[in-house]
Amino acid sequence: MNDPLKVAVAGLGTVGAGVVKLLADHKDLLAARAGRPVVVSAVSARSRTRDRGVDLSSYAWFDDPVALVREAKADVVVELIGGSDGPAKAVCETALDLGRPVVTANKALLAHHGLALAARAEATGAGLWFEAAVAGGIPIIKALREGLAANRIDALHGILNGTCNYILTTMRESGRDFADVLAEAQALGYAEADPGFDIDGIDAAHKLALLASLAFHVPVDLGGVSIQGIRHISSLDIRFADELGYRIKLLAMARRTAEGVEQRVAPVMVPLDAPLAHVEGVNNAVVTEGDFVGRSVFQGRGAGAGPTASAVVADLIDLARGHKVPVFGVPSSALSVLPRAEPEDHVGRYYVRLMVVDRPGVFAEVAAALRDEQVSMESVLQRARDPGETVPVVMTLHDTGEAAMTRALARIGAIDAMVEPPRVIRIEQF
Amino acid sequence: MNDPLKVAVAGLGTVGAGVVKLLADHKDLLAARAGRPVVVSAVSARSRTRDRGVDLSSYAWFDDPVALVREAKADVVVELIGGSDGPAKAVCETALDLGRPVVTANKALLAHHGLALAARAEATGAGLWFEAAVAGGIPIIKALREGLAANRIDALHGILNGTCNYILTTMRESGRDFADVLAEAQALGYAEADPGFDIDGIDAAHKLALLASLAFHVPVDLGGVSIQGIRHISSLDIRFADELGYRIKLLAMARRTAEGVEQRVAPVMVPLDAPLAHVEGVNNAVVTEGDFVGRSVFQGRGAGAGPTASAVVADLIDLARGHKVPVFGVPSSALSVLPRAEPEDHVGRYYVRLMVVDRPGVFAEVAAALRDEQVSMESVLQRARDPGETVPVVMTLHDTGEAAMTRALARIGAIDAMVEPPRVIRIEQF
Repeated sequence: MNDPLKVAVAGLGTVGAGVVKLLADHKDLLAARAGRPVVVSAVSARSRTRDRGVDLSSYAWFDDPVALVREAKADVVVELIGGSDGPAKAVCETALDLGRPVVTANKALLAHHGLALAARAEATGAGLWFEAAVAGGIPIIKALREGLAANRIDALHGILNGTCNYILTTMRESGRDFADVLAEAQALGYAEADPGFDIDGIDAAHKLALLASLAFHVPVDLGGVSIQGIRHISSLDIRFADELGYRIKLLAMARRTAEGVEQRVAPVMVPLDAPLAHVEGVNNAVVTEGDFVGRSVFQGRGAGAGPTASAVVADLIDLARGHKVPVFGVPSSALSVLPRAEPEDHVGRYYVRLMVVDRPGVFAEVAAALRDEQVSMESVLQRARDPGETVPVVMTLHDTGEAAMTRALARIGAIDAMVEPPRVIRIEQF
Repeated sequence: MNDPLKVAVAGLGTVGAGVVKLLADHKDLLAARAGRPVVVSAVSARSRTRDRGVDLSSYAWFDDPVALVREAKADVVVELIGGSDGPAKAVCETALDLGRPVVTANKALLAHHGLALAARAEATGAGLWFEAAVAGGIPIIKALREGLAANRIDALHGILNGTCNYILTTMRESGRDFADVLAEAQALGYAEADPGFDIDGIDAAHKLALLASLAFHVPVDLGGVSIQGIRHISSLDIRFADELGYRIKLLAMARRTAEGVEQRVAPVMVPLDAPLAHVEGVNNAVVTEGDFVGRSVFQGRGAGAGPTASAVVADLIDLARGHKVPVFGVPSSALSVLPRAEPEDHVGRYYVRLMVVDRPGVFAEVAAALRDEQVSMESVLQRARDPGETVPVVMTLHDTGEAAMTRALARIGAIDAMVEPPRVIRIEQF
């Protein structure tokens, strides 16, 4: 048997403990697959005494993760500290500068500093692996860097945040409202105490920026992602979507257009026969469009100790096998900056919900505003017409430019009968 | 730029021409991804004059594919001749014995001779790559050998034959009968003139045997696959499935059980919320169950020049990058023979359709036969009771052993009012 691959693990939260457990549980299986044992040699975390459910007694312990990198003489460093700066960044930079490969699950770090870290990895030939950073249960980084590498990829979209998908699924199944379901998700541990990172779409944006870089060979451009979360999705919208034959999903979408690269995270209505319409609960999924292969769909669990550890260890097996792959699929010198395609350029279909005090003539005013901007309605739903009451009016719009629609809705929002600003959700056919 | 990877292509049918076209179309992209150019240096096919829609004039031509292997001095041989024996086998054996890596799309060859070829590849360190052999549009070989390699895989199932899935989808959508839809599929080129290989489940069995070997680290055991095709599926069954909330799919299923390994290809009813229920037309899909990662689902086009060429070239990129992976995920010496779990051991739910001349007492006889074997009915559907007419009686059975059910159905089939043998389709929840 060949020499073992010695692994230093920085960060022993749920995922770190999961990696240690997986490497211990599947010792023989992994050695057979990797052609050599894959063993933890040293670990680092803040608390030495916390019970993590795994036996750490045989590994060298470092309080300082940077000291772990410098002194543990491991073959590879697994960074599971998290956070886009601070110790996580120091660990990765130190390891890469020493020519030590890094495996990380840290999407925030890569979304903010991916290009610089890739250049560092290339300078020493160290290698930077991050299957666990996007949809741990789906080998999508490998698919883009390797499995689909024969293709020009022109578009991809996905459900990249399990918390949001769980909330939207539960709202639909139970008819309950956003705040209520969020509170339950927090109690169950599916959502953080401070949920903004997930429900405002930031986590999905981090992941999307990484996938877009891999797919289109552009530098990671987090600032180029237009981001909208799911706080404003009401159970009313979910019910109307159902009635219209759609599901509302928080989608991360990237496309190469004539103008450049479009990156968006937003709640979107997809028809029931779309590949992602039936991806429910905490699952993640990604759809890619390649010029030779056509459409491929990948689905699996997005987070949690098991799937994330699975992804980390898959990278370790690749390393043990001696594989080398450019960080973003091509050398960073081959990444080319493309213009940002602005959302205003988007032409598509929309769902609009107005909350209206029902009085004569309101609808004529709405229709006039749409007509003046040449926005054309596809369907209208209105129920429970009790004069003087607030009623939802739901419209779907035919293909229309985002700019024209925004102007029309500004005028509609100013009509005195409007009780709240119009709600707009994009409809995508996919 | 590093030395090019020189590729010899044996076989220039649709897929071979597709590979040549892809390598030409994406020359620069592939060089950036692979770190070196990937170029065709020599080709071989039976007819030198046939128009294949690609320019072959700059490649050395060999009439004899084995001479191509011996004399073309390529770095890798792509075998796209097809067939489980004859020239395809000779090409692969010759190349592997010379230490030349082989990339092949030939599932029949691997299903029959996979273990022997893997041993040959290991003897010279040559490498044997076959992403294109199973579901070209889905990087499932890579997923099992690499992406999910941290997991013990306990089960997988999939739609592995696009022809059957197209026929079943079209039967459902159009209400037409099997023979009619098959004839149309033949006219459209989705089914062969001799369709048995597809519709009798043999092609799916070849692919399943390869996936099971990769997943469970057992030698490829084509003889251990219980195979049933779709010829006996009638539009009546499809209609009843719809009514009961199921879809009928030809599934390839492999499981590790307490008895050993179960491998089956059969039409199965799956509920509408199963991952594969909505995989329609010529698409393929695979569901894997890993102990750490949970359930992963992969979907894409199964065949055709584009997807298959995409898979072949992905393997070439891996080779150009210098990757090495054991043929079946572990060295062939680490593959262990497990007993075949026989289908009779299976306990599950079933759909049964009887064609009955309606006369008093028939149903009592059916019910008695089921009772005597302790088979319990979940639901019964019967329509259009015109005494003396032939009517379908459809039952779904609660969990029951295959052996008891088979005995009960033998007795039921012998009732004089039965117009044809009972039709049975397994129901899987997944």
